[in-house]
Amino acid sequence: MNLGRVVGTVVATRKEERLRGFKLQVVEVVDLDGEPTGPFAIAVDAVGAGPGEIVLTASGSSARMTRLTDGCPVDTVIMAIVDSVETDGRVRYDKSGAVAGGRG
Amino acid sequence: MNLGRVVGTVVATRKEERLRGFKLQVVEVVDLDGEPTGPFAIAVDAVGAGPGEIVLTASGSSARMTRLTDGCPVDTVIMAIVDSVETDGRVRYDKSGAVAGGRG
Amino acid sequence: MNLGRVVGTVVATRKEERLRGFKLQVVEVVDLDGEPTGPFAIAVDAVGAGPGEIVLTASGSSARMTRLTDGCPVDTVIMAIVDSVETDGRVRYDKSGAVAGGRG
Amino acid sequence: MNLGRVVGTVVATRKEERLRGFKLQVVEVVDLDGEPTGPFAIAVDAVGAGPGEIVLTASGSSARMTRLTDGCPVDTVIMAIVDSVETDGRVRYDKSGAVAGGRG
Amino acid sequence: MNLGRVVGTVVATRKEERLRGFKLQVVEVVDLDGEPTGPFAIAVDAVGAGPGEIVLTASGSSARMTRLTDGCPVDTVIMAIVDSVETDGRVRYDKSGAVAGGRG
Repeated sequence: MNLGRVVGTVVATRKEERLRGFKLQVVEVVDLDGEPTGPFAIAVDAVGAGPGEIVLTASGSSARMTRLTDGCPVDTVIMAIVDSVETDGRVRYDKSGAVAGGRG
Repeated sequence: MNLGRVVGTVVATRKEERLRGFKLQVVEVVDLDGEPTGPFAIAVDAVGAGPGEIVLTASGSSARMTRLTDGCPVDTVIMAIVDSVETDGRVRYDKSGAVAGGRG
Repeated sequence: MNLGRVVGTVVATRKEERLRGFKLQVVEVVDLDGEPTGPFAIAVDAVGAGPGEIVLTASGSSARMTRLTDGCPVDTVIMAIVDSVETDGRVRYDKSGAVAGGRG
Repeated sequence: MNLGRVVGTVVATRKEERLRGFKLQVVEVVDLDGEPTGPFAIAVDAVGAGPGEIVLTASGSSARMTRLTDGCPVDTVIMAIVDSVETDGRVRYDKSGAVAGGRG
Repeated sequence: MNLGRVVGTVVATRKEERLRGFKLQVVEVVDLDGEPTGPFAIAVDAVGAGPGEIVLTASGSSARMTRLTDGCPVDTVIMAIVDSVETDGRVRYDKSGAVAGGRG
């Protein structure tokens, strides 16, 4: 899975019927500190992520393994909102401190 | 999913029988402003997109999850026509203004 | 799907039993003018393409969606022979003119 | 499959229900000597790997073929802990010698 | 599918139970002449390839379409041993001549 940041939305009125009602988020790939590196992908949001949040995305057929996306023409899904990332015992990203308007 | 622009078509008379009748579009990848960056892919069109339109494509097994492409040897599908893209509260692309011959 | 040119063949006597009888073609990726850009892939040929022809390939699980390759350990298939490619109203590739020994 | 090193963890409270209870590891790709080269991926751990260990990861739909991840929106899984890597008759990596706190 | 050369092996005692008994080979990608170009992948061997042999690998869900790997968390499989590669009527690789200890 990849780490990404929700940076925007896509609106599409005319679409395959199985996509009806989905929220389409623009997700930019970030590094372990939550800093943007690109590229971006368009993802269906299965967890209600808000703008600026760091999220986990699953790709390929695995993107259809949520209740929301089952059987849909969707190849990227947001399936978790990240609280923190830690490497070698050090906190690299913490949602409460690193996101504007966060809980800190 | 990826954002792309419909830039052309491919004609193929001799093909696997399950591909019969599909419209094959050349789709070039675009950035969030709708500007071409490449590369391109050949996609089956499931929504009737026209030349110059910005579209969403799904890849891999998810490309077979439309009614049209179910069970077909197709790995990229156009499954939505994009109206607008917005990031950080700013409109990056709007179909009515950005596409020649559009609604604006 | 990708555009490619059939540039050669691979012979393999010792192989998984489900591959028996398949023609294995070397396909080099081409641009919209039919000019080689690389890289290449080894593909099972489901439509009887000849050397030098420009073809369409499908990848991943979609490569198993032809009658020939159903259930086989095959991740790239040639499933169409390209007659022509057109972008922005201009012919970029035409089989009758561009392929040596073609119909022109 | 890819070789990687477990370098950290991701915590996510709000997530798709099918992800409940999974340990999410940060895995950095390594070369045949076990040296980090990047990039990294977030993987579900199906074998109880510890920090610093060299592991094997499977990607795509194959990441759902463990008992733990069956039917889940997961596209990368740790499914083995590497003891050693050998090329051309030479040991390139050995867990007992190369991992701090290992068995050597 | 990709062409690769078997350059080594990986040993992993602790692993997902469905991987038990598999031979894990290190396969480096080669060009059409059989010369190494990288990168490498770890593949399950379904055909008994030996060190130095040029092989064909299948990736993704197709790697599970051999009798050996059916239903296993495996994303790359060796499913053929290459005898020869020919492009534009010229032999680029021939096992009997190009492999040390081969049949020539």
